[in-house]
Parts: sequence; structure tokens; C-alpha cells
Amino acid sequence: MSILIKNVVMLDLINHEAAEKDIFIEKDRISQIASKINLSPLTANTTIIDGKGKIALPGLVNGHTHVAMTLFRGAADDLPLMDWLNNVIWPSESRLKGEDVYWGSLLGIVEMLKSGTTTFCDMYFFMDEVARAVEESGIRALLSRGMVALDPVNGEKGLKESGEFIKNWQGKASGRITTALAPHAPYTCPPEFLKEVISEAKKLGVPIHIHISETLDEIKIIKEKYGTTPVRHLENLGLFEVKTIGAHLVHVDDEEIEILKRYRVGAIHNPQSNMKLASGIAPVQKMLERGVLVGLGTDGAASNNDLDMFEELRTASYLQKVSTMNSQALNAKTSLEIATLLGAKALGFEDIGAIKEGYKADIILVDANETYYYPRHNVFNLLAYSAKGADVETVIIDGEIVMKNRELTRIDEEKIKFEANKRGIQLVAG
Amino acid sequence: MSILIKNVVMLDLINHEAAEKDIFIEKDRISQIASKINLSPLTANTTIIDGKGKIALPGLVNGHTHVAMTLFRGAADDLPLMDWLNNVIWPSESRLKGEDVYWGSLLGIVEMLKSGTTTFCDMYFFMDEVARAVEESGIRALLSRGMVALDPVNGEKGLKESGEFIKNWQGKASGRITTALAPHAPYTCPPEFLKEVISEAKKLGVPIHIHISETLDEIKIIKEKYGTTPVRHLENLGLFEVKTIGAHLVHVDDEEIEILKRYRVGAIHNPQSNMKLASGIAPVQKMLERGVLVGLGTDGAASNNDLDMFEELRTASYLQKVSTMNSQALNAKTSLEIATLLGAKALGFEDIGAIKEGYKADIILVDANETYYYPRHNVFNLLAYSAKGADVETVIIDGEIVMKNRELTRIDEEKIKFEANKRGIQLVAG
Ligand SMILES: [Zn+2]
Ligand SMILES: [Zn+2]
Repeated sequence: MSILIKNVVMLDLINHEAAEKDIFIEKDRISQIASKINLSPLTANTTIIDGKGKIALPGLVNGHTHVAMTLFRGAADDLPLMDWLNNVIWPSESRLKGEDVYWGSLLGIVEMLKSGTTTFCDMYFFMDEVARAVEESGIRALLSRGMVALDPVNGEKGLKESGEFIKNWQGKASGRITTALAPHAPYTCPPEFLKEVISEAKKLGVPIHIHISETLDEIKIIKEKYGTTPVRHLENLGLFEVKTIGAHLVHVDDEEIEILKRYRVGAIHNPQSNMKLASGIAPVQKMLERGVLVGLGTDGAASNNDLDMFEELRTASYLQKVSTMNSQALNAKTSLEIATLLGAKALGFEDIGAIKEGYKADIILVDANETYYYPRHNVFNLLAYSAKGADVETVIIDGEIVMKNRELTRIDEEKIKFEANKRGIQLVAG
Repeated sequence: MSILIKNVVMLDLINHEAAEKDIFIEKDRISQIASKINLSPLTANTTIIDGKGKIALPGLVNGHTHVAMTLFRGAADDLPLMDWLNNVIWPSESRLKGEDVYWGSLLGIVEMLKSGTTTFCDMYFFMDEVARAVEESGIRALLSRGMVALDPVNGEKGLKESGEFIKNWQGKASGRITTALAPHAPYTCPPEFLKEVISEAKKLGVPIHIHISETLDEIKIIKEKYGTTPVRHLENLGLFEVKTIGAHLVHVDDEEIEILKRYRVGAIHNPQSNMKLASGIAPVQKMLERGVLVGLGTDGAASNNDLDMFEELRTASYLQKVSTMNSQALNAKTSLEIATLLGAKALGFEDIGAIKEGYKADIILVDANETYYYPRHNVFNLLAYSAKGADVETVIIDGEIVMKNRELTRIDEEKIKFEANKRGIQLVAG
């Protein structure tokens, strides 16, 4: 199986160029990029895509989400955090069944595919169901079972299930599924438990996915309990000796930024969630300047309320500019990078996030035809500051076309909306 | 001519309800809203729109823009403000001709119509050309010729042209065009000139549209020159005795907020522009609590970079939440209100911005079918926090369908993109 994309304007985020190219895909990888590729008779069984007038980007990487939380999208907004959790989210989640998580995951995956996301990093429950949705839909994902260990019994249960999940799913779906261990956060997982997780992660060879320094309340709790800050606390425990994906990192000081850099922690910025929940503004521009591996995520759709990475990267850029009072902060190219190549590195992927020979063939084609793509002064600026998720026309993941002309090839969008709608409403009604 | 919209979910922002309704439009106004409207033989010549599965909202009101600046969209981003103005915007603007402004205006109007904006408030040059674009496209606009009076000759020229523009266009296009006087800002218009503008506005019976307190530089300049802040300076001059539309109002203290309230100044918040140019964060939540007439605008597409009011209202909400560290700030309903009814009041309109009997028939129908409208827990939350401009399917302005199934009925989108693209690129190339 091979695909040839002809005459597409290719956004090259490594060399910062945009030029018309042909892109040849063999099996799951990009095998050739050139001004003109002529097929030999050997490659007869090739799907040809006319890229004229389209812009090719690496698929977007959603570095932190809880995809099945689409079930609770808009169920309750504009509430204080604890009211929202206590009265809406937690009671609804306590009623969750595996099938709900399956349909909620598909709902979120459809939304991500249709707005150009080709990889996501998830932490939730009933992860077998999330994995099933990933396998069927064709998307790529780094999946982990969230573990809360305030009660040690829950902690051990989580660790056991995580181990089974990793054994069953690591490398499955032709390698599209990878896995991690996910202790929820330093304030929900005591040190003893985190040490167990660290040794288990080393044994299994998987990364750790964890929320860190999301709110000022968390900072206060950790300071009271351990006399230090969350990042230092986790460093002391040795957690960063394992490849770590840290979500949020809103409240971090300069020394903590150095720690994140030193250990190559993936720092996943979730601007819309941090804004909507009034958590604070992460010092992303500073992290980038210091060389931290910054990625970008939407967080769950209950606190966003969509999974649109184009909106997210634009918000990230504008928020850094105003919070640093520097209009040059997080520029167009860098905001595209944290949503693609740098975001992939933050998750530990070394062969996705760029359109480059040898990389995985995760590519999106944007139909740049709406008025807001004109005048065509600068394609990078247009993609970062004007483009909409709805303009994504074709999505290729792992060398397979999973969306063509905005139609998904593998899954039934109408059935997914119907099922997820019904289940979401039942869950919240109780 | 009349229109009957059947079985549409109507968002009622006055009573905060969403229910299925029929909406009957006669000539330019909404004549009846009811659960079921049966046409009498007298109303035989009626266009029927099937609203099933759609959501009806009042058309969005873009309270501050420079629509023809779409020509410079993305030409240069991520620059310090003065570099951007000196090296890109001002040289390009100095080459502007009337025809350029006409095509640039049409480009921006297409973008606004296709994302649900039915009224905009503009300040620019060659306003006859903007008015011509408004007349032809079917949109509603409050137009004003921007006046910079650092050189008194320019000031007088501006005032003369403004007078002629108002005489020629006030109430034209069946009343869709209204006009204002637009001294650019307190730091570009000396007190003597502003006094002339005030007396002229009183004589002509038009409002004043002016930028106020956009940047810290402006605050510094006004303080040095006049020993006070911009809002107090304008109050001292008597400017607010005329109905005033003040764009930005980023840097205002509590007493200034009281002044804005007392004079019913329309305070137009432009969050994406203020973020992107690193101007600061306006205290919008506080203004709303104190009863200021807050509206919402995109500012020009050179500093935004789109004219999408759905993005703008979401950004406004999330930015207030994070900047006040209060997740209840600028909630879903209020962010929809500043983009519709309250925004219309801020501009001085008393019969637009709501779907209400007797109001102007400015209505948009949103096709709420993408995955991010599911589950259907709460329509207000979905519209504020998930909806996209691209979901607007039908636009009715002044009782006329100007967009149907995303096709504009009056103007040729392809020709507009072609002309605006060509002219924009020539203007920037020089
Ligand atoms: Zn999270
Ligand atoms: Zn402006």
C-alpha cells in the first residue's frame, strides 16, 4: 500500500519553509519528498491524492487529554472547581461503565481527527475501551490508566490494572498504541506509591504521565505535606529518572524550569483548560527559551470545551504574548511546533510530528480556501493565526487515509454521536 | 417579502431559555415568535426555512474593527508594535487606494457573514468604498472615517471628509448603514481638535467612535501631556456628553469604570488583538459587574488575525476567568450577550442583538451537527464554548437571506478572494 500526494504546499517546520512538493508514502512511513515524484511501475498500487491548493502539515499532537470526558462537555460550566468536581464530574464518573468510555472516546476521536489531530496522549479509566476506540478509528495514542492512591487499596488496584493494560496493549494496532503509567498527581499519590510506580515504570520500560503543578491549591498542599514544591518533590523521589510527561506545570519557578529541562520532562501546556478553570498561566515562553520540551494539549472536553488543537495553539501564542507583555513571545512557527514536532518529542516520540523522510506518515491536508487564508502573505502566519480545524480535509495516519473530504473511512460518525449523546445525558442525569 | 423559520431551537438571551420555536419575519423585522405559526393566505409570498436541528441566534455584533485591514492579514506577525506599524502597516497603508479598500472590505465582510456576524462597527479611510461594500453585501454597519490630527491640516481634512461621508451615507442601504465621527485616539487628537469633533457630533447627531487606553504607552503619553488618564481627560473635554463607542479600554481604574458607566460609554473589548499585540487585559468582568455597556470586537485582521466572533467571545470568557483567577467570571451566557444584545447596546442600537418581536430581523442559524455539539447537555454552553463560525449555515440581515447553506446570495466570494489577494500582496510588496 502506498500513497502519493501531488503538488501540495508542504509546511516544513524543521527548515521553516513552505514550498510545493510531492510526498510519497510507503506502508506506514514517508519514503520520499521531492519537487516531482514519478512513479515507477513497481509502485503501481498507489493511491494518488491531488494536493493542489492544499497545505500539508504534520498531524497535530494532543499532548494531554481525557478523551472520554467529551461525555460531560458543557454539562456544567462556570462553576468553582470543587463544586464542578463534587456535584457534576465525580458523581457522573462514578456511574461510568466501559461501554460509556468506549463511545465517549470515539466521540472525542472523531472530533480530533476532523480537526487535524493524529496522536493523543490520554489518562483515564476503562482504558481497554479507550484502546479499542483507538484501534478501530485509526488514530495514534499514548494511553495510560489514571491512578489515584489516596486510599492505598485503590492505588494497588490501579497499579495492577495498569500493568495488565500495558501487557495487553503496548505496541498493538500495528504500533499505533503505546502505553504509560499514570499516577494522577503528586497530591493524590503519596511518596510510597510513587516510588512503586517509578520502579514499575523502569521494569516495564514505559514513561510516566502525571499532572504537575496545575493549581495554587496543589502547590499549597505539597508545601504543607512535604515542605517543597511539586517539581522538586518529584525530583527528590527520583520520578524524573523515568521519561516523564508532565501535564500543566502552571506554577513553576526558574529553578524548577531547570529541573524540567535537565531531565527532558515533556511539559504539556493546556492553555484553554488552565484559563477556563482559572488555574493560572504557565511560563511557556520562558520554558522554551530555557530548552524545555514543551508540548500542547487540550485537557478533557469538560474543561475546554473542545478538542481543537488549532484553537489551542492560537490561544497558547496569544496568552504568552499578553502574559509576558511581549508581542514576540511564542511566535507562529513555535506555536505550530509545540503542536507537532516539539509536542511529539515531549511525549517521547522520535519519528512523528514532522513531514520528513523516514518519519511515520501522519499527515493532514488543509483546504486553505476560506477567505481567512487570503491574502496569501505568509503560510505559517495563516496556519497559526487564522486556520480552523474545520478546514482539515484529509487525514493520513500510519500511512492510511482515515479521513477523506471530511468523511471518516473507518468509523460511523452518526452512530457515535447518537450513542455518546444518549450515554452522556444518562450519566449526568444519574 | 416575508420569511418563516420553522421548528428551530431559539436561543433567547433575554430570558435565558432555549426552546423550539417558529419565527416569522415581515419586511425587515421579526413580527412573531411562537411555538407554532400557521400562515394565513395573506402571507402567501413567504420563504419557509426548515430550522429542524438548527439553533437560531441573534446575529453577532462586531463592535470594533478596521475591516479593510484584512489586506494585511498575516503579512507580518510577532513583531514589536512600533516595528510592525513603521515597517509594514503604515507603508502599506500609504499605498492604499479606494479600490483596495473596497476589495479588502468585501473580503472581511465575507469572513464575517460566514462566521455569523451581521453588524460591524468600523473605523478606517476611503469610507465611501467601505460603505459601497456594505451596501452591496447586505451586512449592517456603523461606519466612521478615522481622523488623526497630530498635524492640524490632516485633522481638518478628516473632519471635512467625515462630514461629507455622514451626509452621503447616514441611513442609506435601507437604514443598514449608520455613521459616526471617529477621532482616532486621545494621543493622536489634541484637545482643541477633540472639542471641534464633539461640537460637530452634537450638530450632526452622530456618536463618536474612538480608541481609548489601549496600551501602557498611551497612558504614559496622556499623563505626561495632560497630567491625567485618557478616560478622565476625555471626560474633562466633555466628549462623553456625546454617545461614545470606546475601543479597548484595557488600562482603566475603578473610578474610570464609574465614569464609563455614568455616561453609558460603549466599552468594546478586543481580547485577541489585546493579547496578540501584548497590550494588556481589560477588566471586563469588573466593568460588567459595575454595569458598563460592554461590547466585543475583533479589531482589524492585521492584529487578530481573523474576524471570527465565536473565537472572540470564547477567548474573552477564558481570559477573564484566568486573569481574575475566578472560573465563574464572564460565563457562557454573558459572553454570548456581549457578542449580541449588550454589544448592540454598546454601539447605541436599540432594536438589534436579540430575537424578539419588533426587533430587526438579524438572525443566524447554526447547524449544530458536528461532534462538539454532543452530548446536548446545555445549548448555551455549547454555543459559547464549543461552536465554530463555520457552523453558521444561514444568515438573515434586515429580513433578507444573505447566506443560505453557506452560499452568499449577493456577492461573489471567489472574485473577492482573487481581487483582495492580488491587491494585498501588491500593497505589502510596495
Ligand atoms: Zn488533565
Ligand atoms: Zn482598532
